[in-house]
Amino acid sequence: MEDKVIARLVETVMADYEKGRDIDRLDLFSQPDREQVLDIIRKLLIIVFPGYYRDGVYKFFSDRNRVSVLMEDVIFNLRRQVRIALAFDEKNAGNSEAEQEEKAEALCVSFFERLPQVRALLATDVEATYEGDPAARDVAEVILSYPGLHATCINRMAHELYLLGVPVIPRMMTEYAHGATGIDIHPGATIGKYFMIDHGTGVVIGETAEIGEHVKIYQGVTIGALSTRGGQSLRGVKRHPTIEDRVTIYSGASILGGETVIGHDAVIGSNVFITSSVKPGTRVSVSTQELEYKNDSEASFKA
Amino acid sequence: MEDKVIARLVETVMADYEKGRDIDRLDLFSQPDREQVLDIIRKLLIIVFPGYYRDGVYKFFSDRNRVSVLMEDVIFNLRRQVRIALAFDEKNAGNSEAEQEEKAEALCVSFFERLPQVRALLATDVEATYEGDPAARDVAEVILSYPGLHATCINRMAHELYLLGVPVIPRMMTEYAHGATGIDIHPGATIGKYFMIDHGTGVVIGETAEIGEHVKIYQGVTIGALSTRGGQSLRGVKRHPTIEDRVTIYSGASILGGETVIGHDAVIGSNVFITSSVKPGTRVSVSTQELEYKNDSEASFKA
Amino acid sequence: MEDKVIARLVETVMADYEKGRDIDRLDLFSQPDREQVLDIIRKLLIIVFPGYYRDGVYKFFSDRNRVSVLMEDVIFNLRRQVRIALAFDEKNAGNSEAEQEEKAEALCVSFFERLPQVRALLATDVEATYEGDPAARDVAEVILSYPGLHATCINRMAHELYLLGVPVIPRMMTEYAHGATGIDIHPGATIGKYFMIDHGTGVVIGETAEIGEHVKIYQGVTIGALSTRGGQSLRGVKRHPTIEDRVTIYSGASILGGETVIGHDAVIGSNVFITSSVKPGTRVSVSTQELEYKNDSEASFKA
Repeated sequence: MEDKVIARLVETVMADYEKGRDIDRLDLFSQPDREQVLDIIRKLLIIVFPGYYRDGVYKFFSDRNRVSVLMEDVIFNLRRQVRIALAFDEKNAGNSEAEQEEKAEALCVSFFERLPQVRALLATDVEATYEGDPAARDVAEVILSYPGLHATCINRMAHELYLLGVPVIPRMMTEYAHGATGIDIHPGATIGKYFMIDHGTGVVIGETAEIGEHVKIYQGVTIGALSTRGGQSLRGVKRHPTIEDRVTIYSGASILGGETVIGHDAVIGSNVFITSSVKPGTRVSVSTQELEYKNDSEASFKA
Repeated sequence: MEDKVIARLVETVMADYEKGRDIDRLDLFSQPDREQVLDIIRKLLIIVFPGYYRDGVYKFFSDRNRVSVLMEDVIFNLRRQVRIALAFDEKNAGNSEAEQEEKAEALCVSFFERLPQVRALLATDVEATYEGDPAARDVAEVILSYPGLHATCINRMAHELYLLGVPVIPRMMTEYAHGATGIDIHPGATIGKYFMIDHGTGVVIGETAEIGEHVKIYQGVTIGALSTRGGQSLRGVKRHPTIEDRVTIYSGASILGGETVIGHDAVIGSNVFITSSVKPGTRVSVSTQELEYKNDSEASFKA
Repeated sequence: MEDKVIARLVETVMADYEKGRDIDRLDLFSQPDREQVLDIIRKLLIIVFPGYYRDGVYKFFSDRNRVSVLMEDVIFNLRRQVRIALAFDEKNAGNSEAEQEEKAEALCVSFFERLPQVRALLATDVEATYEGDPAARDVAEVILSYPGLHATCINRMAHELYLLGVPVIPRMMTEYAHGATGIDIHPGATIGKYFMIDHGTGVVIGETAEIGEHVKIYQGVTIGALSTRGGQSLRGVKRHPTIEDRVTIYSGASILGGETVIGHDAVIGSNVFITSSVKPGTRVSVSTQELEYKNDSEASFKA
């Protein structure tokens, strides 16, 4: 290809960047960095499950050295990304550079101080997942391969950053997990201990959902909002349900609305679509689905 | 393990390649290369969102240099992959080597000339996604983390290559996006501006679907074909619906069939299964689902 | 950040590892390694489809050399991972180091001896996928981009390891495929030739499912268990259905229960939820779903 053709195409694209839209921003370092956030997630997984995730780069004589080097690395990079993200929040807009630096550091310290509590929750999730699934052969299999645990782990960490008020980064973390597992849990969702998601593809749990302890959820379950046609005007409003302790929700069920409460020990059957509260201990299922059985090979079949 | 055991196993596999099936092809360079296509996607994302995606390899003094180097790289590799892919199309089979080279170059130039129009569409998608979701905190959050935007972006680029008649590569691009997001949009689908997909896991949009402007789609929605038992005999036939402007389709709805038209401003409720047209402005929902509520703890519950 | 702050945070995490829970294991090399298993999958894909997957690292003069080097590499690493995994199985707990080494080697040899049979099945899957989808342009497109084929390929290999009694690793392989494709097939599932999954996101096929030949499955289909509230007590019991030859199952259908048999040539319609057997040749569909159509723009619409 002639150089002048390439030059013309480059000019075309460069000219397009002049239009001043959000997508035309060129400065890489005023947005959080996806690669860095991914690297932080990877290292946090090693810190959380030190015997199950490995970093090919580091070789150490002692586990203490290994964890120490990883943590310094994560602290350094997380603080930098948090610092960039803080600028996205109007509340921080008035702060000086130094104040924002200090705030970023304080948020990172608080995050790491919470890590043992996060790990305590994850230990209960691992137990619930192993105990709850006859296909699970070993606790290690759960930690090494279950997408529900993977998504929950990243969500529990992102949730801490969300509670600390860090913008953008928590969502980048949970969307990474969403991509990896098909499980979409907003970092705002509150989730109690002994949480288990089986299979998980298609699960959606909204920002203001509150989930109790010993809750078990299957693939394709939505814990979502009613119409969000209000868009940005609904921000901050409780739009998603409350699920009490020991509730099981089978595949494909949708539970919607900020005032919907699923009482403790309830069981929600497959494909149930529910927008109002359910009393404790109730089992809800779709009344026998009317099915048509045909054996006439000529009949038109639609699907 | 003894060398002769390994040698025997290698022989077993080598002998298996002699069977002349499609899977036995050995020549790597007569098929488009997944790694190269992935690399092209990665670089195109940087070109499309220059302030949000980063290439660790390149360090530059100016944004112009950065984009220029990336574009030369993409042009070079894309042309090579397009050249390989063209050989898959019967229409090109009669062309000489030189003619195919020339055609590949012309296709790449046309693709890059279309990039500003693609970016103009994406700017509307970013706006629609931010405005439409109360959970979105910032436009940057949308660009950096929303899978719906990610899939739409890759689809809009793949669609241009599809319209230009490039074989195989557009589908490789959209299947990359499908793997990354759970959103499966065929590169043939036509999609108007201000498109928004929320959550998105499980969305399927078929090859001959036509989607208007300001359309909003939730997780698990299928815009698909009726029975495709005709298989290859149906190729080229319009098999997928038309969705007019300002339609909203809630989670889990299925809209099927090439003659199905969803009129403008219609709202299709969750889990609606529809194979015929809907008039403009209509809201369609599943009539109250019959549910059974049981509190007898001994009753057998199936799910 | 001051060194003493970092030191304190490191101490906090190190102290947390002292609690003796499963998640506190520190020894990396007593669990199978995710990176290694991923590397094995990548190389097996090259061996299975030698003309379609490429390893950037290896450059060779002959295909024989290329495959030979890859196989030696896979054999070496797979044997090591199998050796580690064997320790997870109570049956192997009593064996000596040497016996476990020997067993790991024998399992790897058996696996590679089965590879031609696996490839023979995959050749039929490629054919069924191409023939069954009007959107497929070429056999190469199927191999290079169809997630259903990708998941099936990894599952067929994992299934061989599962049949050989290798713990943990088969599930790690299929969960990799699950993450990459949204298709969750347990390595225990038995699947006949000419298998096709279209779109695939959300598909779940359980451990004890048995699937015949020429079966076609669409996105969101569950071939699952009834309540698994028995948890670990149900391990080993047949909990998942049997699907006979030439059955088609459309999107979103759920077929549940270990005693459920879908007879040959049956067609299961979209969203059908079924927990009992279906006779051969029957077409089952949801009786016309009751839908509400509203045009009053003031009526409250819930979705």
